[in-house]
Amino acid sequence: MSAELTSLVTSLAQRARAASLVLATVPTAAKNAALARLADLIDASHAALLAANASDLASPEAAALSAASRDRLTLTTARLNHLAVSVREVIALPDPVGDLLEETTRPNGLHIRKVRVPIGVIGIIYEARPNVTIDCAILCLKSGNASILRGGKECFHTNTALAALITAALTTAGLPADAVQLIPTTDRAALNALLKLDSLIHCIIPRGGESLIRFVAENSTIPVIKHFQGVCFVYVDAAADLSMAEAITVNAKASRPSACNAAEQLLVHASVAGKFLPAVARALIAKNVQLRCDPVSLAILAASDLSTLVAPATASDYTTEFLDTIIAVRVVDSLDTAIATINRDSSNHSDAIVTADEPAARRFLASVDSATVYWNASTRFTDGFEFGYGAEIGISTDRLHARGPMGLRELCTYKFLIEGTGQVRP
Amino acid sequence: MSAELTSLVTSLAQRARAASLVLATVPTAAKNAALARLADLIDASHAALLAANASDLASPEAAALSAASRDRLTLTTARLNHLAVSVREVIALPDPVGDLLEETTRPNGLHIRKVRVPIGVIGIIYEARPNVTIDCAILCLKSGNASILRGGKECFHTNTALAALITAALTTAGLPADAVQLIPTTDRAALNALLKLDSLIHCIIPRGGESLIRFVAENSTIPVIKHFQGVCFVYVDAAADLSMAEAITVNAKASRPSACNAAEQLLVHASVAGKFLPAVARALIAKNVQLRCDPVSLAILAASDLSTLVAPATASDYTTEFLDTIIAVRVVDSLDTAIATINRDSSNHSDAIVTADEPAARRFLASVDSATVYWNASTRFTDGFEFGYGAEIGISTDRLHARGPMGLRELCTYKFLIEGTGQVRP
Repeated sequence: MSAELTSLVTSLAQRARAASLVLATVPTAAKNAALARLADLIDASHAALLAANASDLASPEAAALSAASRDRLTLTTARLNHLAVSVREVIALPDPVGDLLEETTRPNGLHIRKVRVPIGVIGIIYEARPNVTIDCAILCLKSGNASILRGGKECFHTNTALAALITAALTTAGLPADAVQLIPTTDRAALNALLKLDSLIHCIIPRGGESLIRFVAENSTIPVIKHFQGVCFVYVDAAADLSMAEAITVNAKASRPSACNAAEQLLVHASVAGKFLPAVARALIAKNVQLRCDPVSLAILAASDLSTLVAPATASDYTTEFLDTIIAVRVVDSLDTAIATINRDSSNHSDAIVTADEPAARRFLASVDSATVYWNASTRFTDGFEFGYGAEIGISTDRLHARGPMGLRELCTYKFLIEGTGQVRP
Repeated sequence: MSAELTSLVTSLAQRARAASLVLATVPTAAKNAALARLADLIDASHAALLAANASDLASPEAAALSAASRDRLTLTTARLNHLAVSVREVIALPDPVGDLLEETTRPNGLHIRKVRVPIGVIGIIYEARPNVTIDCAILCLKSGNASILRGGKECFHTNTALAALITAALTTAGLPADAVQLIPTTDRAALNALLKLDSLIHCIIPRGGESLIRFVAENSTIPVIKHFQGVCFVYVDAAADLSMAEAITVNAKASRPSACNAAEQLLVHASVAGKFLPAVARALIAKNVQLRCDPVSLAILAASDLSTLVAPATASDYTTEFLDTIIAVRVVDSLDTAIATINRDSSNHSDAIVTADEPAARRFLASVDSATVYWNASTRFTDGFEFGYGAEIGISTDRLHARGPMGLRELCTYKFLIEGTGQVRP
């Protein structure tokens, strides 16, 4: 059985590789035609898609999901309309393929151009979110990459129905049907086989919870672009505008606690802690946020009327991604301590300073070793759309290839095109 | 023992990580001062370095080396002078850290800058080449990265002596001594432990033979940038200037057969094979190159006076990196066949077309899926110095992060610095 699955996945990856070589030089118009057709097919297929989704929702696997996961699995007419809109938005984005990145003529006359090209074959490993099937397929297609999609078993019927529309759209536009392929089984053995095909697949992007991402990272011989966690910090400096700091803290924590760019950790400079902490605690508690406090912040809040509403932190709270309405709070004695604390405890995703002291801000921006570092703004802006990319395939806390929000260009690599007149190397 | 080595390597990596946070914001002048001091120390330490090298050369490990490997291990006064020159050349290169890559102001007023920053901690795994110790240490240092060096056991005394000079130079310049560390043992268990420290080390660059690189790639949980092989092609098109094609083929194969950018494979269009093959065969044989021929090319050469000097190829010859004075030869019936053959059999390192037909060349450049693709020039130019980088840390056939020759900029990643005026996300 496992040998059969390996053979099935290998054959699928070989077809993806062949399709990727075609896609790499396909004109933008052909890719856009496939996207336009896909949007139309989604519009025309609501009944079939909702029926497939209903059978997923009725499965025992779906019954085991949390309410939030079940909600993400559920398609509605409104969500299908939104899906078609998102496909049409990608049509409007510029095609990154062929961009001239650098150009030089060497003293010997060699003309070297560094141009953007697709990575090749990209594997997307995700959970029970049907919108990821469409989002990732269209971003890979627009950037000239073949994609192999492996969604969660809870979503299998919906994904199969969506993949059929993608195949039809590719074929109508004259593009290889193998440019986007859904793995036709959710057997874990097939995933394991896929993750070893480093000669055919060039990049794996896992999307989902930390345990899925860790499984992929640990079992893949293919390079993985990922973030495990968003343990994001807001540091309120001695020179902070405290009302701005309160607004940023509340937004960073409470506007969407389940997001990876939500703040999990609050650091407050000792000189403003007495004034700031009661105010921000009141505002956070009003949003149902629990505060887990270090001894100094706990002592400050114990003196207020909030003493029964805050709890002492444990050591592990200081490095935890709560993904919930919980924030850990510490008082620090200096900017340097704040920077060192963040560089030790954060996941290097998104960290912010609130201050009116420009030299302090400059030092924080330079010294905090994270993908995105903010001065006087909420960490919640770490997002491809908010950055103006028009799309997002994920956010990377890795340092190689891409860091931070990843759009179409981050789905590309480059190659060197070198033109000579017979030059040989002395 | 293994636990002790793990602890030793972990502690070393923790110190490297701490040093990397300091190095990331160090002024260029301080890095250059350390480099200048290192060059002076090399100049002043010939006797000690040659003595250390002599003890390596006298070891049983060195006795087991090939003549070529033993030569690479050997230091001489001339080579030490060259080493000091190479350090001074890196001083003259621009510091890539802090380069502004992109800048945008979003409609909400957020000012986003994407700036080049060091990757962090880089592990260099290499064999018995003392010059790699210096080359890699200085390139990592100039680009603001801490480095961990693990050289071959044949070179241990020489590397230890060189590392002592590096440490002294760092200390004199006021930089952290831990910015460059040599692993003080060549026990394989220490290497295995190192390759698992993905929370402290951000990138591994293996330099050496394919078996070393495969070992590193298969055992590392840290991202690896590498090339396994250079199976490079020269394709002589129907419209080639045949004297140019001969010069390029001979240069690509014979100017340095052991280099990864040397050609191993020759494809010749059928319409010019009858004329080109005898001429190029004669020129290659004059350089002691053996030809391993497919049936068509063999038949053409059998009709010449070279018939006893060429041999039939086996199937494996067509994908072999000979690293020797051997070339495999095939006749192809079209440009499309040439492109498909290269995309199937090459290692995607460096491939060339020789032709006067511009549309054919454009198609080749666009369709050949390799890091560097040449039109009318030798594959031997794939090199950081030849590209004008002034330095080379390696050549990548990977697609993520860096592809082709890698200089100082490829030792960097980027981060986003975002300045606001209190923006929160709606």
